[in-house]
Amino acid sequence: MKDDRQIIEPSILAGFMELLPEDQILFDSMINTIKKTYESYGFIPLDTPVIEKSEVLLAKSGGETAKQVYRFNKGDNDLSLRFDLTVPLARYVAQHYGQLTFPFRRYHIGKVYRGEKPQRGRFREFYQCDIDIVGNGNLSVINDAEIVSIIYSTFKALGFGDFTIMINNRKLLNGFFDSVGVDNRLDVMRVIDKIDKVGEAVIAKELLELGLTQVAVDSILELTRLTGTPDEILQQLGKWSIDNASFAEGLNELNQVCQYLNAFKVPQANFALNLKIARGLDYYTGTVYETFLNDYQSLGSVCSGGRYDDLASSYTKQKLPGVGISIGFTRLFYKLREAGIIGGTGRCTPTKLLLIPMQDTMAYTLEIATEIRSKGINVEVYMNEGKMGKKFSYADKLGIPYTAAVGSNEMENGVLNLKDMKSGEQMELTIDEIIRKLCQ
Amino acid sequence: MKDDRQIIEPSILAGFMELLPEDQILFDSMINTIKKTYESYGFIPLDTPVIEKSEVLLAKSGGETAKQVYRFNKGDNDLSLRFDLTVPLARYVAQHYGQLTFPFRRYHIGKVYRGEKPQRGRFREFYQCDIDIVGNGNLSVINDAEIVSIIYSTFKALGFGDFTIMINNRKLLNGFFDSVGVDNRLDVMRVIDKIDKVGEAVIAKELLELGLTQVAVDSILELTRLTGTPDEILQQLGKWSIDNASFAEGLNELNQVCQYLNAFKVPQANFALNLKIARGLDYYTGTVYETFLNDYQSLGSVCSGGRYDDLASSYTKQKLPGVGISIGFTRLFYKLREAGIIGGTGRCTPTKLLLIPMQDTMAYTLEIATEIRSKGINVEVYMNEGKMGKKFSYADKLGIPYTAAVGSNEMENGVLNLKDMKSGEQMELTIDEIIRKLCQ
Repeated sequence: MKDDRQIIEPSILAGFMELLPEDQILFDSMINTIKKTYESYGFIPLDTPVIEKSEVLLAKSGGETAKQVYRFNKGDNDLSLRFDLTVPLARYVAQHYGQLTFPFRRYHIGKVYRGEKPQRGRFREFYQCDIDIVGNGNLSVINDAEIVSIIYSTFKALGFGDFTIMINNRKLLNGFFDSVGVDNRLDVMRVIDKIDKVGEAVIAKELLELGLTQVAVDSILELTRLTGTPDEILQQLGKWSIDNASFAEGLNELNQVCQYLNAFKVPQANFALNLKIARGLDYYTGTVYETFLNDYQSLGSVCSGGRYDDLASSYTKQKLPGVGISIGFTRLFYKLREAGIIGGTGRCTPTKLLLIPMQDTMAYTLEIATEIRSKGINVEVYMNEGKMGKKFSYADKLGIPYTAAVGSNEMENGVLNLKDMKSGEQMELTIDEIIRKLCQ
Repeated sequence: MKDDRQIIEPSILAGFMELLPEDQILFDSMINTIKKTYESYGFIPLDTPVIEKSEVLLAKSGGETAKQVYRFNKGDNDLSLRFDLTVPLARYVAQHYGQLTFPFRRYHIGKVYRGEKPQRGRFREFYQCDIDIVGNGNLSVINDAEIVSIIYSTFKALGFGDFTIMINNRKLLNGFFDSVGVDNRLDVMRVIDKIDKVGEAVIAKELLELGLTQVAVDSILELTRLTGTPDEILQQLGKWSIDNASFAEGLNELNQVCQYLNAFKVPQANFALNLKIARGLDYYTGTVYETFLNDYQSLGSVCSGGRYDDLASSYTKQKLPGVGISIGFTRLFYKLREAGIIGGTGRCTPTKLLLIPMQDTMAYTLEIATEIRSKGINVEVYMNEGKMGKKFSYADKLGIPYTAAVGSNEMENGVLNLKDMKSGEQMELTIDEIIRKLCQ
């Protein structure tokens, strides 16, 4: 019989990621590490709809963000897919204000959507892993230090190598700019942001072109030159005795954050004050964070965030200050995998033990499997017919660490020949002994 | 200053569910139970894009399904949100065929989208929790029994009370209909499906109206009247000695499934043969399953699925038989919560211990918290200023099981006064003793 069915080429859209089992298992285990770390600090899980009302979701958005949003109609509804997890948080907190306990500490790990031009390592659907602490009216600056501690614990647990959490403060920057007579902060910050790439001379020239005085340019360059330990930088900034309330408040906050970081036992090697951080200048109002992998700076910041005065001003008149961070995990995973920093685990299944029945031992094998499984061990029975070689090769390909062929001898004696697939070592063990061994 | 900002009413779309922390934590823990159970049988996690190409996703769909799909354009792309996890699985397996190891056992827990008319307990965005075993060319019927064992383990672990897994076989039904001269099977099954609601007389009348002979109607009614243990029903069916290959094959498969269920140790009380199950008549080709909560039959089947001959025929000429099930978890959770069968745990946070610093013990408290947290215990420090009563009330509202106020005495002596928030009991313990106690 001629098979003339029409076959549609199976494929997914550009800019979307899906993984083969080995990478999926690694991806999930890392997401789980993030989740566990967030929970260890008492953050509450949250899940919100991927689709929201456009008028609600896009209340504040314009320009580039709005263009990237997946927006469409269904019936009479104007719908949009969420483009981050912060706007849904703001909506959620405003909507359920009366039923939440503050400070509200939530984490949210979920997919967000941005219709960017697809390019290598940029995704249109990607996971964000967010935490935020939202206060009701006020929120202690100690939370700003705790966020650094959480970033530290998370990246320590993920094990991507050495990393540095860069800390800055918007109030300090704003006050500094005020004190030298700069009012076009955004333009100035955009220039400063390039300093490590293009050098001081170019920056100086561009700042003058923006209309800054030579004195202001010199002061700004002096600020960007500040290096050293947090203590050294804070001391230096204190000595400048700049007479500006915002600067003083920002400096005080930075001082407190650094002081509490000692209590949180965040090692000095893992954080730094960096007065050049331009991140979220139009959004954050106090402490800001960026995180860099020391051996992989080109990746840019892998975990960023900051303090904001008023989370949900679009949805409520309640003042809800907050501080939070986000990890764009899909891109991070893709880039580290591509660079060979992670991956190649060989584990393509959660199965720990594959039982292979021989002759007429299937029913007995299923019984043992049920028993072992009831002790919390992931166990699989090979059920299809076939040659023994093919069955062991199945375990090999999936990276199952242990196998045991179950013949009539084993059945009669209540033992199994457990094979360590890596070392090739074989041990005759009772079912109980196997359970004890694999529970480790 | 007058606050005349425009406030947008924070709300979500009808037919979408989001939960407050207490329910979210419960929801997540149940999803985690399902995940752990699926993994204990060696199923591999899978995650696919929520958005797919319409031409790929809708290759086979027409009618009602197509109408419900969220479909839209972005740039030149015709996009659709997935409406189940089976079509994406078929596409995935066909697309990555050469890189997968068969039988391919995957689970997938994720959101799907259907633009149904919203009504109480029906959702447009909902979680499905699926497993499928996909063979390459063939797949042993033992897998069909294993699926029952997985349903059993999952619902046992979820603890929603007694449940019954109903099993039927399409081949047996088809063969039976053939043997009594019925060719409009779909129409006949749609009538039979109502038998428990409307009774035999109505069914008989409607079947005659469909053009069936009286003999055929009598035979069909005899089939639907079959009750008893699986063994009794199988024996009865065997005695009928119907001379039809499909019937014989179906009967043989049912026999094997029941036989292996004993090996899997699925209790007799939890499964039954039910020859009236009409589920997926146009989709499944062998064993079919439906699962009912004994004390909550009105909910309908809470876990359904079956065997199909050819999973990915739209995308590949490879023959890929499979067997699988799906739990529509969002609706199930909503209904059981509404009925008061689950919920009311009082746990609104993963935090196990809240430390409350007094006087000048904040830095010390943060240090202890870091130490306790490093042992895998979820611990939170209350950081905002305020009265002690408010701080304990925070723990109360969130359902944090243990608190400890940290004063200068405690700091000097290296102890904490651990308070069990439920019993009110207080114990003076060292940090190590607290760690040991809370690790339990």
